[in-house]
Amino acid sequence: MTRDDYCHLEPIPVRWADMDAFGHVNNAVYFTYCESARMGLFGKLELEKHREHPRHGPALVHAACDFHRQVHHPADLEVGVRIAEIGRRSFNLEYGVFLRGEDALVAEGKSAVVWVDYDAGRAIPLPEALRRALSDAMD
Amino acid sequence: MTRDDYCHLEPIPVRWADMDAFGHVNNAVYFTYCESARMGLFGKLELEKHREHPRHGPALVHAACDFHRQVHHPADLEVGVRIAEIGRRSFNLEYGVFLRGEDALVAEGKSAVVWVDYDAGRAIPLPEALRRALSDAMD
Amino acid sequence: MTRDDYCHLEPIPVRWADMDAFGHVNNAVYFTYCESARMGLFGKLELEKHREHPRHGPALVHAACDFHRQVHHPADLEVGVRIAEIGRRSFNLEYGVFLRGEDALVAEGKSAVVWVDYDAGRAIPLPEALRRALSDAMD
Amino acid sequence: MTRDDYCHLEPIPVRWADMDAFGHVNNAVYFTYCESARMGLFGKLELEKHREHPRHGPALVHAACDFHRQVHHPADLEVGVRIAEIGRRSFNLEYGVFLRGEDALVAEGKSAVVWVDYDAGRAIPLPEALRRALSDAMD
Repeated sequence: MTRDDYCHLEPIPVRWADMDAFGHVNNAVYFTYCESARMGLFGKLELEKHREHPRHGPALVHAACDFHRQVHHPADLEVGVRIAEIGRRSFNLEYGVFLRGEDALVAEGKSAVVWVDYDAGRAIPLPEALRRALSDAMD
Repeated sequence: MTRDDYCHLEPIPVRWADMDAFGHVNNAVYFTYCESARMGLFGKLELEKHREHPRHGPALVHAACDFHRQVHHPADLEVGVRIAEIGRRSFNLEYGVFLRGEDALVAEGKSAVVWVDYDAGRAIPLPEALRRALSDAMD
Repeated sequence: MTRDDYCHLEPIPVRWADMDAFGHVNNAVYFTYCESARMGLFGKLELEKHREHPRHGPALVHAACDFHRQVHHPADLEVGVRIAEIGRRSFNLEYGVFLRGEDALVAEGKSAVVWVDYDAGRAIPLPEALRRALSDAMD
Repeated sequence: MTRDDYCHLEPIPVRWADMDAFGHVNNAVYFTYCESARMGLFGKLELEKHREHPRHGPALVHAACDFHRQVHHPADLEVGVRIAEIGRRSFNLEYGVFLRGEDALVAEGKSAVVWVDYDAGRAIPLPEALRRALSDAMD
């Protein structure tokens, strides 16, 4: 995967506090990095506009990450996100974490996002407009 | 999976700050919960004692989590961890996140831990004593 | 200050992730500890019940902490909180962070909480019932 | 205070995860922002180079913050840090948190840093070279 494979690239400076007692960026923080990229993508897709009801929206049901290399502060990251798959009630995202100026991936993530009626507590079909926006961003 | 399937159970009170702007525990925080259970297990296994060199030790190369239910503060969690697999240079852990007093899993996690020579930056065989401790805890 | 000087004592296990690259609990995390104690106190005072409008509520305008000793995982803390002062539109809290089983304070915190009309963005008088609850807890 | 009053200005994009269940940046996160600025300043001052012993170094003994305005994601911050005072064994820093493109301070912080012999656990005089570097940056 290269940066071109991702439809959104979020620049993320590593904070000193992202490191743990091992002196490198803590594993849980990579999920926050991926979340930042996901929220950046959602902003671009104007996800808010596509809600058909204020109590309908996304819910993360799965997250995973492979850690290829350690990262230390100070460093600047770029986190790419791409839409890997669009289902009837869900879509899958993939993430690539790069050090600025380097081609090798330092980590790769995945997540599954389900569209949910928060009050009913169950998955519902993706709004048609959102599906179109996702599909356009996928190409 | 029930609590009995795990060889270590870490009690974790949810902190108010674990919640995000959606008003429930943030996805990345579950990885911190799993880490707490993992560190609790490492303490029980006296992992520190089994290092054959101060610059040899564990490195997380994969982490994943399935989120079944939302959790809100205030709540008390119990996070179980079990040893799922022991390889030559690595072992796999599985986690179950329970609300205290309830049987249903609210989340399930996995991670792969590789034994690493930090200076050489490569995987090395698990120390024999650690392998035995892991194996004993697996039964 | 001893534990008896506080009207609420929140037990808080230190998480491994609370430590930073210096190998001790990070300074910012103490403010999360104090927040946990504050939220515990707010729960006891049934603060939610005392809101006169859903868009009126507390806002933190000041927070401070003196760090007396370093804390390392694993450790169990108890964070006391007391009401130091009640004003017309605000109240001041003080916190004491103890290691379980030890008398010496490892850190001491303060915060100022203002009662705010979130939509108007300005301080308003404390609801009378909340003032009474705070006053009762102060004694 | 304006940006010109600070000797180092750290650009910090707000992360979605910096927000709490109130939907704004959590109070504890401001201390992480100030820490980022402090570490940026320490890098500029080449603090590492000025240690006279690997087990001598800085310890934060006090931190405080006044919160003037709420901040929401997405936002870009600039956190200024200045050296307010230099003592024999310690120095005081002040921070100003700005929204990019705006002049008003959204928060103001302070911290006291003591130079410590970590093994002896007590304050020792600032290394002369560090004092000079701090003094130069103060002007």
